[in-house]
Amino acid sequence: MTDKKRYFVENMWYAAAWQYEVSEADNKLARTICETPLVFYKGRDDNYIALDDRCCHRAAPLSTGRIEGNCIRCMYHGMLYDETGQVVEIPGQEHVSKSLKVRSYPVEEKGGMLWIWMGDPALANTEDIYDFPALSDRENWRGFDKEAYLHYNANWLLIVDNLADFSHVAFVHTNTLGGSEAYAYSTLAENIQKEEDGFSMERWHRDSNNPPFHAKVVPPEEVDNKVDRANIIKMGLPGVFLMETLFAPVGWEEKHGRDNVREYRNCQFMTPETKNTTHFFWNYLHNWNIDDPAISASLKESLLEGFMEDKVIIEEQQKLLERSPDFVPRAIAADEAFVHFRNKWGQRLRQEDADNPLVYKENKRSIL
Amino acid sequence: MTDKKRYFVENMWYAAAWQYEVSEADNKLARTICETPLVFYKGRDDNYIALDDRCCHRAAPLSTGRIEGNCIRCMYHGMLYDETGQVVEIPGQEHVSKSLKVRSYPVEEKGGMLWIWMGDPALANTEDIYDFPALSDRENWRGFDKEAYLHYNANWLLIVDNLADFSHVAFVHTNTLGGSEAYAYSTLAENIQKEEDGFSMERWHRDSNNPPFHAKVVPPEEVDNKVDRANIIKMGLPGVFLMETLFAPVGWEEKHGRDNVREYRNCQFMTPETKNTTHFFWNYLHNWNIDDPAISASLKESLLEGFMEDKVIIEEQQKLLERSPDFVPRAIAADEAFVHFRNKWGQRLRQEDADNPLVYKENKRSIL
Amino acid sequence: MTDKKRYFVENMWYAAAWQYEVSEADNKLARTICETPLVFYKGRDDNYIALDDRCCHRAAPLSTGRIEGNCIRCMYHGMLYDETGQVVEIPGQEHVSKSLKVRSYPVEEKGGMLWIWMGDPALANTEDIYDFPALSDRENWRGFDKEAYLHYNANWLLIVDNLADFSHVAFVHTNTLGGSEAYAYSTLAENIQKEEDGFSMERWHRDSNNPPFHAKVVPPEEVDNKVDRANIIKMGLPGVFLMETLFAPVGWEEKHGRDNVREYRNCQFMTPETKNTTHFFWNYLHNWNIDDPAISASLKESLLEGFMEDKVIIEEQQKLLERSPDFVPRAIAADEAFVHFRNKWGQRLRQEDADNPLVYKENKRSIL
Repeated sequence: MTDKKRYFVENMWYAAAWQYEVSEADNKLARTICETPLVFYKGRDDNYIALDDRCCHRAAPLSTGRIEGNCIRCMYHGMLYDETGQVVEIPGQEHVSKSLKVRSYPVEEKGGMLWIWMGDPALANTEDIYDFPALSDRENWRGFDKEAYLHYNANWLLIVDNLADFSHVAFVHTNTLGGSEAYAYSTLAENIQKEEDGFSMERWHRDSNNPPFHAKVVPPEEVDNKVDRANIIKMGLPGVFLMETLFAPVGWEEKHGRDNVREYRNCQFMTPETKNTTHFFWNYLHNWNIDDPAISASLKESLLEGFMEDKVIIEEQQKLLERSPDFVPRAIAADEAFVHFRNKWGQRLRQEDADNPLVYKENKRSIL
Repeated sequence: MTDKKRYFVENMWYAAAWQYEVSEADNKLARTICETPLVFYKGRDDNYIALDDRCCHRAAPLSTGRIEGNCIRCMYHGMLYDETGQVVEIPGQEHVSKSLKVRSYPVEEKGGMLWIWMGDPALANTEDIYDFPALSDRENWRGFDKEAYLHYNANWLLIVDNLADFSHVAFVHTNTLGGSEAYAYSTLAENIQKEEDGFSMERWHRDSNNPPFHAKVVPPEEVDNKVDRANIIKMGLPGVFLMETLFAPVGWEEKHGRDNVREYRNCQFMTPETKNTTHFFWNYLHNWNIDDPAISASLKESLLEGFMEDKVIIEEQQKLLERSPDFVPRAIAADEAFVHFRNKWGQRLRQEDADNPLVYKENKRSIL
Repeated sequence: MTDKKRYFVENMWYAAAWQYEVSEADNKLARTICETPLVFYKGRDDNYIALDDRCCHRAAPLSTGRIEGNCIRCMYHGMLYDETGQVVEIPGQEHVSKSLKVRSYPVEEKGGMLWIWMGDPALANTEDIYDFPALSDRENWRGFDKEAYLHYNANWLLIVDNLADFSHVAFVHTNTLGGSEAYAYSTLAENIQKEEDGFSMERWHRDSNNPPFHAKVVPPEEVDNKVDRANIIKMGLPGVFLMETLFAPVGWEEKHGRDNVREYRNCQFMTPETKNTTHFFWNYLHNWNIDDPAISASLKESLLEGFMEDKVIIEEQQKLLERSPDFVPRAIAADEAFVHFRNKWGQRLRQEDADNPLVYKENKRSIL
């Protein structure tokens, strides 16, 4: 038995799926999180259930099984699992050993997202799940009718890096989310708060033009106004990005109130599927003219265009890094926030390693 | 030099190819068996020849070569091999060293199948090849005009597992080969015989309905009759599955004779291509109304539909197992037969390891 | 730290790209050579520049960047690199550390090809680049308007092997470049010169028919003439193949002069992309009727047809060799030249290993 490298902190809530991906009757979602194949389904009591997606008998996928109340039946030899992962019936066999079971995982709905706890269930506290009120407050905030999902062929931390330095907006998104290269030269991250679970920061672009995505949706008479533009960011472990975006009259300060401010709320959740692939969930909400569906549709299109610009470059990074295991990155001043984030993540990994070392066990009972 | 893991017993006859795949003039079949690339062809004397499919000179494939009598010519630099694998001509070179050769393998035709011996030719005894009379007796049994082949992205033993527990018929094949989930609850494997080279068993479904694949081909007045249905199975090393299927009047016993019994014979041969891929050969024969080609055509369609149901679940198993090297299967009562089969296979592997250990040799003459 | 296997000699000029692939304004070519991802571009001074194609900051590809004079800007966070690989600007950051840089590589144009030096720049001597006058002398020699490129899924040495024994022409190219199998039986390599940097040889096919590719382009009255056909070959490290092909009247000797001789010049450059893939550059030139574009077009088509015949067999070899790490090749008499070539290559590898051992370094700063 030797040490095994730990890639993921287990005792954390991860964004697992938008609620609508699972909530339909008889719908089973197969999704891998932190290298663990899982099946998600909704039980008879509107409860959300996550189990290992491998029948304990011969590793057939439970996600091609059949939901029966709170249970799911493996459709290979018919074994029936309850919501705790215990086998409760084997067709043609009278006694069922208690040792026949798969692992079940705590799942909690919040803000339309299903969150999963990958570690010790005794440590799971649903109050630790990030709160982003706009996601739940659909009376005042309008987002997409179906929240959006992208699949990345890249390590999740490369997406965190991306979001932690908005100077990239100037070069990657010049004609979409950015608006000009000046954004990189004349603005800086401000008020960087380094926290135990991540960081927060602001970036102000004073007296600037409206960037294309915003210009497309404001009333025509506002398009050419100068604005003070702010992105106010919170990035939390593991991969929870929450942002307020403000477009305010030039010279605006918080004390002036937000009546004349156009506001957005953006969430982006990066959840590792494997070491080198990521589930990416997002929504973009606004709180004005929320009865006009064209605004949200335009924002979705603009943002997606920008996110695809990121995706191309991040997936190229991933490929180059996989081919260059000896690459040692060089730091620049703007790396401060994500260096802190990676340090905090690394501390949590090492802490779990100390508490509960991973070991390789030779598997003498492999059926391959 | 260190030990190397042995995955395949060498001293065994493996199903290699249906005869029609090789018998046409000038036809060369490239097929990998037990991780060994081979070329099969028919010689001048209607003899079947199998050689390593790598020219000993620079590893060009002989299967793109040219048959000349019993010989095959590599079409890279023109080296000519006889049926023993010896090089007998090098264009432009007078003397040919006896050390220039590739390995040749014993091949034998039986029941329309070409069987190959992967081990020591001195130990090859053609009488050890399984006999399945229906395959040769085409006067009384009708099967497919061209016997069928499927390629599996799965370890061959997962297919053996599948065939060793027919309770899966109830869940995987409910609407095709099975007919009802009752098959799993109300029937059990009977008369399990554990043998040195595999196992045999029966499974009776008394007083049952005709399953869909059979109902489609019997005369209309029989469709709704109740039947006693039997599957009588023999599974032999390495991956030879032979089955008698009977549909008899309710209450039938062997002593009543088989005049009123509808009979089928099914063979399925699972031959490892690599550790994780398998050649799957099959036929399904019947001995009544054999002049009606529609029956065999319908059976082929029904069975293929069922086999594709298996293939989907088995290839999913394979993927999950490859991603889960630490998966330890849990046994249930119905595993008895295949546990025995895997034990016998393991004994043979260990015996060959003891007789003839595999070792890694550093290859200092690799041309890559 | 342990030894790492060296696959490529560094202190050599490698064929990197045809000039036209890079020379267009704002054109960036991403190309991997010897497992090293590179970006090529042309600077303001018509100079050719090659840099590591990974921004030193976060490994974004520079090849999706923007050329600015002799510089290239990474379009992730806007870092600007000069032609030596030094970062000279970081938007939003005042001071730029000298340690922020990527490696730059000497590049030289010769004969329409850009050559790159993968080793110590202090040792790069442009006079060591092979000279093949026909490639530059477009007044007397006509080749393709755009020189040709193929990508091989094979180790480059397998292509060297191929070109080092022309007996393959008889079997692989019977109906294209060869003309008859007699070529293998009745001709031999002559005048083999083993040199420090490769080898040279001749192969004469006296009193032979015109092979198909040549018969297609000569005047009709010449087609059925017998000819003395010569291929005069030079193969140099690393993968530089230069050939004169002559079709002379039967009985011709050099002292008769070349007035009645139809001549071709062929270059083929094999540059390793990775251990198992190769860049293949080629041209085929003639010095008669050079104003008739149909001749070059026909030659390109014929040669490409022949090269595809090679490519099929070489890529099959590669696949078989990758699957057969224990394959030990057997030598035949015709291997003399490429055995010498591989020995010289091996000597150079070992020499660089002795001078500058490669070592594995654990990368504690990996960002994946």
